[in-house]
Amino acid sequence: MDFAMDERTAHLAEQVRAFLDEVVYPAEAEFEAQMAAEPDRWDSPPLMAGLKLEAQQRGLWNLFLPDAEHGAGLTNLQYAHLAELSGRSPLLAPEAMNCAAPDTGNMELLAQFGTPEQHDRWLKPLLAGQIRSCFSMTEPEVASSDANNIALRITRDGDEYVVHGRKWWSSGAMNPRCEISIVMGVSDPDGPRHRRHSMVLVPLDTPGVTRRRSTHVFGYDDRSHGGHAEIEFDQVRVPVTNLVGGEHEGFAIAQARLGPGRIHHCMRLIGMAERALELMCRRVLSRDTFGGPIADKGVVQEWIADARIEIEQARLLVLKTAWLMDTVGNRGARTEIAAIKVIVPAMACRVIDRSIQAHGATGVSQDTPLASLYAHARTLQIADGPDEVHRRTVAQRELAQYR
Amino acid sequence: MDFAMDERTAHLAEQVRAFLDEVVYPAEAEFEAQMAAEPDRWDSPPLMAGLKLEAQQRGLWNLFLPDAEHGAGLTNLQYAHLAELSGRSPLLAPEAMNCAAPDTGNMELLAQFGTPEQHDRWLKPLLAGQIRSCFSMTEPEVASSDANNIALRITRDGDEYVVHGRKWWSSGAMNPRCEISIVMGVSDPDGPRHRRHSMVLVPLDTPGVTRRRSTHVFGYDDRSHGGHAEIEFDQVRVPVTNLVGGEHEGFAIAQARLGPGRIHHCMRLIGMAERALELMCRRVLSRDTFGGPIADKGVVQEWIADARIEIEQARLLVLKTAWLMDTVGNRGARTEIAAIKVIVPAMACRVIDRSIQAHGATGVSQDTPLASLYAHARTLQIADGPDEVHRRTVAQRELAQYR
Amino acid sequence: MDFAMDERTAHLAEQVRAFLDEVVYPAEAEFEAQMAAEPDRWDSPPLMAGLKLEAQQRGLWNLFLPDAEHGAGLTNLQYAHLAELSGRSPLLAPEAMNCAAPDTGNMELLAQFGTPEQHDRWLKPLLAGQIRSCFSMTEPEVASSDANNIALRITRDGDEYVVHGRKWWSSGAMNPRCEISIVMGVSDPDGPRHRRHSMVLVPLDTPGVTRRRSTHVFGYDDRSHGGHAEIEFDQVRVPVTNLVGGEHEGFAIAQARLGPGRIHHCMRLIGMAERALELMCRRVLSRDTFGGPIADKGVVQEWIADARIEIEQARLLVLKTAWLMDTVGNRGARTEIAAIKVIVPAMACRVIDRSIQAHGATGVSQDTPLASLYAHARTLQIADGPDEVHRRTVAQRELAQYR
Amino acid sequence: MDFAMDERTAHLAEQVRAFLDEVVYPAEAEFEAQMAAEPDRWDSPPLMAGLKLEAQQRGLWNLFLPDAEHGAGLTNLQYAHLAELSGRSPLLAPEAMNCAAPDTGNMELLAQFGTPEQHDRWLKPLLAGQIRSCFSMTEPEVASSDANNIALRITRDGDEYVVHGRKWWSSGAMNPRCEISIVMGVSDPDGPRHRRHSMVLVPLDTPGVTRRRSTHVFGYDDRSHGGHAEIEFDQVRVPVTNLVGGEHEGFAIAQARLGPGRIHHCMRLIGMAERALELMCRRVLSRDTFGGPIADKGVVQEWIADARIEIEQARLLVLKTAWLMDTVGNRGARTEIAAIKVIVPAMACRVIDRSIQAHGATGVSQDTPLASLYAHARTLQIADGPDEVHRRTVAQRELAQYR
Repeated sequence: MDFAMDERTAHLAEQVRAFLDEVVYPAEAEFEAQMAAEPDRWDSPPLMAGLKLEAQQRGLWNLFLPDAEHGAGLTNLQYAHLAELSGRSPLLAPEAMNCAAPDTGNMELLAQFGTPEQHDRWLKPLLAGQIRSCFSMTEPEVASSDANNIALRITRDGDEYVVHGRKWWSSGAMNPRCEISIVMGVSDPDGPRHRRHSMVLVPLDTPGVTRRRSTHVFGYDDRSHGGHAEIEFDQVRVPVTNLVGGEHEGFAIAQARLGPGRIHHCMRLIGMAERALELMCRRVLSRDTFGGPIADKGVVQEWIADARIEIEQARLLVLKTAWLMDTVGNRGARTEIAAIKVIVPAMACRVIDRSIQAHGATGVSQDTPLASLYAHARTLQIADGPDEVHRRTVAQRELAQYR
Repeated sequence: MDFAMDERTAHLAEQVRAFLDEVVYPAEAEFEAQMAAEPDRWDSPPLMAGLKLEAQQRGLWNLFLPDAEHGAGLTNLQYAHLAELSGRSPLLAPEAMNCAAPDTGNMELLAQFGTPEQHDRWLKPLLAGQIRSCFSMTEPEVASSDANNIALRITRDGDEYVVHGRKWWSSGAMNPRCEISIVMGVSDPDGPRHRRHSMVLVPLDTPGVTRRRSTHVFGYDDRSHGGHAEIEFDQVRVPVTNLVGGEHEGFAIAQARLGPGRIHHCMRLIGMAERALELMCRRVLSRDTFGGPIADKGVVQEWIADARIEIEQARLLVLKTAWLMDTVGNRGARTEIAAIKVIVPAMACRVIDRSIQAHGATGVSQDTPLASLYAHARTLQIADGPDEVHRRTVAQRELAQYR
Repeated sequence: MDFAMDERTAHLAEQVRAFLDEVVYPAEAEFEAQMAAEPDRWDSPPLMAGLKLEAQQRGLWNLFLPDAEHGAGLTNLQYAHLAELSGRSPLLAPEAMNCAAPDTGNMELLAQFGTPEQHDRWLKPLLAGQIRSCFSMTEPEVASSDANNIALRITRDGDEYVVHGRKWWSSGAMNPRCEISIVMGVSDPDGPRHRRHSMVLVPLDTPGVTRRRSTHVFGYDDRSHGGHAEIEFDQVRVPVTNLVGGEHEGFAIAQARLGPGRIHHCMRLIGMAERALELMCRRVLSRDTFGGPIADKGVVQEWIADARIEIEQARLLVLKTAWLMDTVGNRGARTEIAAIKVIVPAMACRVIDRSIQAHGATGVSQDTPLASLYAHARTLQIADGPDEVHRRTVAQRELAQYR
Repeated sequence: MDFAMDERTAHLAEQVRAFLDEVVYPAEAEFEAQMAAEPDRWDSPPLMAGLKLEAQQRGLWNLFLPDAEHGAGLTNLQYAHLAELSGRSPLLAPEAMNCAAPDTGNMELLAQFGTPEQHDRWLKPLLAGQIRSCFSMTEPEVASSDANNIALRITRDGDEYVVHGRKWWSSGAMNPRCEISIVMGVSDPDGPRHRRHSMVLVPLDTPGVTRRRSTHVFGYDDRSHGGHAEIEFDQVRVPVTNLVGGEHEGFAIAQARLGPGRIHHCMRLIGMAERALELMCRRVLSRDTFGGPIADKGVVQEWIADARIEIEQARLLVLKTAWLMDTVGNRGARTEIAAIKVIVPAMACRVIDRSIQAHGATGVSQDTPLASLYAHARTLQIADGPDEVHRRTVAQRELAQYR
C-alpha cells in the first residue's frame, strides 16, 4: 500500500509537468481562439497536431496502456500520478498525449480482446494517433444505467452481423477522423442475463450508419473532442470477423472496459480540481473588496481549506484504488472503483463551483476554464453509471459482510 | 401578511397559465430550432414577434411595472405570482410579456427618475417592446461586488458628459435592437462614499461605443437574450440631458433599481424550480430500471420531497418579501431582499441539479431546458451581488439588534 | 393565507413574552440547580408549581386547546405564534402554561373522543394541571414507524379489556403525578389494515403495570419531564368503558392526534432555534479572538445569516400549515404537516449546532441550554415518524399529480 | 508513503482485535450497569481494574508512546492502526490499554521534557496506570482558541512558582486517582507573543487547589473518565523544580503536545465511525418496515455507502498524516494535522448521526453507544482548537504558495 511515485513515475511526472508548463498551458488561449473561429468544425483545432508531435517526441505517448507491447506498460498506480497532471488541462493534454477517452478504453479493449487482424486494422492507427474511435453503448429513450434496457440488435446472418438500432452519447463520433465504433447490442435476447450482448466493430462509413446530431453538455458542444453523436444503425452489415471477444460476451467485456475507464476519469478529475483550486488562490490574492484582498476573507479561506482537504482525501482513495487494481485485480477493487466514481466527480464539482464563486462573473464565462470543467465533472456524476448505481454497489458489499 | 392571490391576480394568473399552455410551451421546440439554425444571430428568434403580439392581445404586457400610468400597476405581491409563472419558460415567456431583465429594471428606473423627454425618447419604445436596453455597471478586472471598485469615468465638459471606460456583462447589448445603455460611472471621485457616481443614458450608436465581444455562461451565449456584451466607451460624448436623476446620485439610484430586480429574479427562479420538479416527476414515472419505475426508488422520492419542501419555503419567503416591499418599502425589506437573493438561486440550483440527475445524460443535454436553467440559476448566485455580500447584510442587521 | 397575528393573538403574544422575561428566563438557573440537587427526582422541580400558578393568573393556560369549552379556543394559526414563544424555554414554559406534550395531545384526544365520564375522571384534572398523562404507542424490538409492527394486544374479556405487551418511550410516565396512559394495541389482528387497533385508558396504578426503566436522550434523562418509561403491561385489566373512541378505530384516532402534535413540536422548535440564534449573536459580540470580536469573522456572520434565513423560511411554512389545518382540515394539510416535520427539526439542529460551535466548549456544557436543545431537536427527526417516512408522504403526493 | 501494516503492527492489531472481542465488548453492558448503579462515583467503574490487568498481560500497554524506553516505541503510523481499533470502544479500550487522553499527552510531554526527578515522581506511576493526570489549559470567560486570551498567572517567588487563576475542561480531574495537573499560564506577559507562557506541575492536593465542579457534554458527565473539572488555583505554591521544560516555553511545548494528541483523537474517531457503521448495518438487516428489511431501502443504502466512503477517505488521510509525522516531523505535517482535525470529527459525526437515524429512538438512548459517540465526536470539533482555526491554518498554507 505504497502510494508514492517510484523513480520512473517521478521522472515521467516531471516531464509531464514540463510539457504542461512549456507547451500546453501556453496553447490554451490559442486553442479557444481557433475553436471560436470555426464554429462548425468538429475536428480538433489545428494546433493539436503540433501538441501531439511534441508529446510524442518527449516520450509522453500512450502512457495509459498497461500493455507493455503496445503502450507504456505502466501500472494503474504509476499512471494515476500522470493522468492527474493531464487533467489540469483536460481539453488539450490528454488528447495531445494520446490518452483521451474514449480512445483509451477502446485501445485497451482491442489490445486485450482484439484479433491480430483487428490490431493491424484498428489498434495500430489508434496507437499512432492517426484515427479516432467511439464507443456506442448508451441508447436514447431508455435508462441506460440498466444494461437490460439495451435495445439495439446484433443479428448474425451468414458471415455477417446485422446491426440495427440507435445509440447516442457516442462521444467523439462527430470528429471526421473518427473511423470506427465499438457497438454493443443484444445478440441473444433469451440468453442468461449477462450473456445476451455482443460487441462488434462498425466502421462509421459503413452503409446504413448515420450520425443524426450531436448532444451538448450544458451549453458546450464539446466540439474539439468530436462531440457526442446520436447514431442511427439501419440494417448495417459488418463481417463476423468484426466481433470483439466471444459472441454474447459483451457484458463482461464492457465491465472490463469500464473499470479502468472510471479510474482514468477520476484521476483526471483530481487534476481538474487542483487546477480550479490554483485558479481560486491566484484570483483571491489579486482582487480587493471592502478594504482588503478577497484572500483575507474567512469565508473564502474556508473554501480553500475545504478544497485542499477534499482533494487530498479523494486523491488518496484514487491511489488506493489503483494500487488495488494492480495487486488484486479490477474485481477485487470493485467497491473502491464504485466509491471513487461516486466521490471524485462530486468533489470536483464542489471545488470547481467554489472557484467559480471566487471568480465572480468571470467564473461562469469563457475567460477561465472553470465553467467548462464544471460541466465535465457534473456529467461524470451520470456517465459510466450514475452515482446512485455505484452507491448501491458499495452498500450491498458492505451489508454482505453481515448477512 | 396575506399572501393569497386577490381576485385580479387570480384572474391574471389563470390567463398567464393559459398563455403558457397554449402558446409558450408549444413554441419552445421551434425556438430552439430557430436558434440552432442561425448560430450568429444575436436577435430574438423570429417567432418571438408573434409571441409578443399574442401576449399583448391577451393583456399580459408590462405586468412588472407598479407605475399604473405606464404599466399594469400591480403590487410586488400581485406580480410575484405572475412572474413565477413566467419563470417556467424563462427564455420565452418574460420577453414575450415585455417583462424581461434588464429592460424591466431600466423601465422602472426611467419611469421613476427619467425626465419627460427621456420618457418620450426611451421609455415609451421600451414599454411598447420596440427597442431593448442594457445596464452597464459591472467592469472587468475588478471585483464589482464593491461599488468602490468602479473605474469608468463620467466627466462633465460643458453641455456634455464624457464617458470613458470599459464595462462588461451588459446583458442584452449584443441584440441589434438594443439601442440604449444606462451607464454608471464615477463622476466625483472625491465625494462622499455613496455620492461619487452618476448614471447617464448612452445610445449604443454614439461614436466611441464599441461592443467588443460577448461573454458566455456555462457554454451558453444567451443569444436570444442579446448576450452579455463587453463594451468599450472611448471618450463617448452625450448631452447633459442624458443624466438620469441627479448628479452623483448614481449609487442610490442603483440601489433603488436593484431591489425590485432581485425579487423579480427570485420570483422567476421559483417558476424555474417548479418546472424542473415537474420534469423530474414526469421523467421518473416514465422510465424503468432494475425492475420498476425510477419513481419507486427511495432516493428519488427523497429528491422529490426535498424539492417540493424547498420550493414551498422559498416561495413563502419571496411572497413575504414582496409584501414587505409593498407595505414598508424597499428599505424596510432590505434583510428579506438579501435573504431571498441568497436562498432562492441556491434552492433552484439544487432542485434543477436533482432533476438533471433524475434525467441521466438527457438532463445535461439540449433535449431538456434543465442544463440551461441550471446555468441561469447558478449565475444568479453571483449577479446583482454575490451570496457572500448578501449574507453579510443579513448577519449585520441581525447582530445590530444586540450591539 | 394571512399569517399575521390578529389582535387577540398579538395581545396574548405580548403577555407570553412578558411572562418569559419576567418569570421564566429568571427561573432557568434555579430550575437547573434544583434538578442537579435531586438526581433521583422524577417529578418537576419544586419551582414549577409557582410558575404554573403565575401562568394561570396571567391567563396563559391551556392555550393549545382549540376546543373553546375546555381551552382557549385558539386556531392553529393563532396558537402557532404563542407556541413558538414557549419553545424559547422548552423545559419550563410549555409545562408552566399547561401546554406540554404529551399531555396536550392526550387532552385534545379526550376532548374530541372521550366520554363524559372520561372527561370528568381524566380530562378535567389534566386541564387543571393536577395530574399528568402519557401515550403508549411505540414498542421495543420493532420498527415502530410502521404501525403494522405493533404487538401489544388488547383483548375483550366480558366487561373488561385485557392489555398485554410492552411499550417504551412513554414520555412523562416516570413522573409520580402521571396517573394515566392512553395505550394503543392490536384488538383485531385480522381486521383491515387500518382497523386493527384500539386505544384504551390504563391507570398506571392498575395491577400488572410496571415501569421498568427510563430511556435517555443523548445523556439527558429528561427528568423534569418525567423521563421516557419502558412499561410492561402484564395481563392488565381495565373496564370496557375505558375504551377511547370506537373499537378497532385506534389507527384513525392516532392519526388525528399526531397531526396537531407534530405542528406543536414544530412551532416550539422555531422558538428553540430563535433562542439559539439569540445566544449565538450575544456570544460572538462578547468574545474576542485574534484581534477582534468573533462577530466580525466572515464565517460566523455566514452562520448567523444562514440561521436567520432558515428560521424565517421554516416559520412561514409552519404558519402556512397551521392556516391550512384551520381552513381545509388536517387531511388537507397532510403534505404540509409531513413537510414541516421533515424540515423544522433539521433546521433547528443546524441552527443550534452552529450556536454550539460559536460558543466553543461552553456550547456543549450545561452552562447554556444549547446541547439540551440539540438533543431535543435531533430526537424529533425520529419521534412521531422518522424523516424518511414523512419524505415518502410528500413525494408520493407530488408524484400522484402526474400518474 | 506505504500505509500498510508491517508485521509487528499486524500482529499487535490481531491481538487488540482479540482483546476487544474476548474482553472489552463483553464488558460494555456491565460497565454501563456499574456506572448507573453509582451515580456519584467519579472513578472508573470497578471492572476497569480487571481490564487493565488483562491488557497488560496481553502486552497491549502504553502502545501510544513512541519513546521505546518508556513505551512501545511504535511509530505514529504503526500506532494509528491500533488506536483506531481502541476507538471502537472508546470508554473502555483506551483506558484499559493505558492509552487514554489526557494521560497519553501528559506522559509524552513528561517523557520528552521532564526531568529525571519528574519521571520518577509522575511519569512512572502514570506509565504503570497507578495514577491519572490532567491538563489545565482552557479557561472560562474567554475564547481559548487564541492562546493570548490565557489569564492564569504563574509568578516566580524565590524557589517557588505562585499559580493563580481558574481553568476548566481539565478532563479527568474529578477522578480521585487524578493526582497531578500540568498547568499552563502566563509567566512573562510582556515577552514575545510565543514566549509568554510556562507550564508547571501542580499536585491536585496542593493547598489552594479546588475542584469547583464538572462540566458536562450533551448531558453526559463523562464520569468514568473523571469528568471535566473547573479548577480554582488560589495563590497555589509549587517548587520551581515543577517547571516543565524551560521558563516561558509553554507555548512551544503545548504545540508539541497537541500534534500527537490531535492525531490520536482522529485515529480513535475512525474506529468510532467504523463501530457506528457496523451497528447500522446489523440494525437495518434485522428490522422490517413496510414489507421488507430496512436494509433494502435505497435511502438507507445511500447512508451506508456514504459512510463507508467517508471513513475510507478519512482513514487514508490520517494514515498519511501519521506517515508524514514519522518522516518529516510534526512541523512538516502541520497542514495535514489541521486537515484531519477538521475532517475526521465531522465525518464521525455524520456517520454516527446516520447510524442513530437508522436505529430510530434506540439510537438516541443508552441502549446503544451511538449518542455517546456522537457527543464525543461533536465535542472534538471544538476541543484542541475549533474547526475554524484549523481551516485557517490549511488555507493560509495553501495561499502561501502563491503569494
